[in-house]
Amino acid sequence: MYPESIKNLIDSFKCFPGIGEKTAERLAFSVLDLEEEQIKFFSSSLLDVSDKVHKCAKCNTLTDSELCYICSDSTRKSDVLCVVEDSKSVFLFEKFGIFHGKYHVLNGLISPLDGINPEDIGIGKLLDRIHDENFGEIVFAFKPSSEGEITTLYIKRTLENLGIKITQLASGVPIGADMEYLDKLTLERAMNDRKSIE
Amino acid sequence: MYPESIKNLIDSFKCFPGIGEKTAERLAFSVLDLEEEQIKFFSSSLLDVSDKVHKCAKCNTLTDSELCYICSDSTRKSDVLCVVEDSKSVFLFEKFGIFHGKYHVLNGLISPLDGINPEDIGIGKLLDRIHDENFGEIVFAFKPSSEGEITTLYIKRTLENLGIKITQLASGVPIGADMEYLDKLTLERAMNDRKSIE
Repeated sequence: MYPESIKNLIDSFKCFPGIGEKTAERLAFSVLDLEEEQIKFFSSSLLDVSDKVHKCAKCNTLTDSELCYICSDSTRKSDVLCVVEDSKSVFLFEKFGIFHGKYHVLNGLISPLDGINPEDIGIGKLLDRIHDENFGEIVFAFKPSSEGEITTLYIKRTLENLGIKITQLASGVPIGADMEYLDKLTLERAMNDRKSIE
Repeated sequence: MYPESIKNLIDSFKCFPGIGEKTAERLAFSVLDLEEEQIKFFSSSLLDVSDKVHKCAKCNTLTDSELCYICSDSTRKSDVLCVVEDSKSVFLFEKFGIFHGKYHVLNGLISPLDGINPEDIGIGKLLDRIHDENFGEIVFAFKPSSEGEITTLYIKRTLENLGIKITQLASGVPIGADMEYLDKLTLERAMNDRKSIE
């Protein structure tokens, strides 16, 4: 009932997670309100991302050059490595400017229930890198979850005798949170990790 | 901080109404999870829509041929014309299969407050068509709003002496609605237009 080109566009939008029929229709019709230049730019951006974006040869962060800009930057601290579960975490930390060392991006987290084992998330490459470079500290920055804990414990154990300081992000009450909406585990962690007021 | 091609894609998604920075980022990263074929299809669908979709020469419904499939269909009832405010309404009626006559798509609705006058929404073309074709009934199917009412009244007045039956969609309580969430105007209309039970 739709003209074929509009139908194809609706089908494309429906490939995205969280976008159903109605939203896809709304987005497809919005395309008709864009300038021709904007549509061309959108179309070529899609092809560019598909053609040019790949993982950094060293740290796996998504990049469109051989090494990502962080690995190429010799002014960054090279003695501390932040291990994250995906490139989005790198971009988030960089947006906020709260970490100035190097990163290593795993291919997700270990999840035995989903059949995801250490070798599936590229831990070998991480360990090789840790052995090659001279890091004084490794920070784990995974989302708080059982998968995050399993992955942290697994890597920590394999690094045990190297004398490297191993840390992870603090858990606790997020700034601005309403106490009544916090889950039990978050509150329990915040209580157990309570700090003396100086 | 993002690779340029990802940044361009995020910027493209941000052109859509209702899509902010975070959603645009999420969608751009979702593109990276699509198959290369899906991305190419998406990219070419965008160009296709831009190149091929235009208004039907007769009724203004969006189409990729000279006349839309409804105007080209000689089996449809040709004595009743449904006037709508945009092509989306046509596709909606067709999806539900609840109207079997012809359509005419205006370029929006008259809105004096926004400086949108009758000539801006293509009423001349509609009137020419009504004079040329032999409609027995014109149905107005605008969204219930003051703009819809102004547009209805304006067209009705110009057609007054032609002896054509003029109707509009019934307003009232939508099926499945919770009474407590209905606005005053809807309830008032439903009360004024109450029907005897047969």
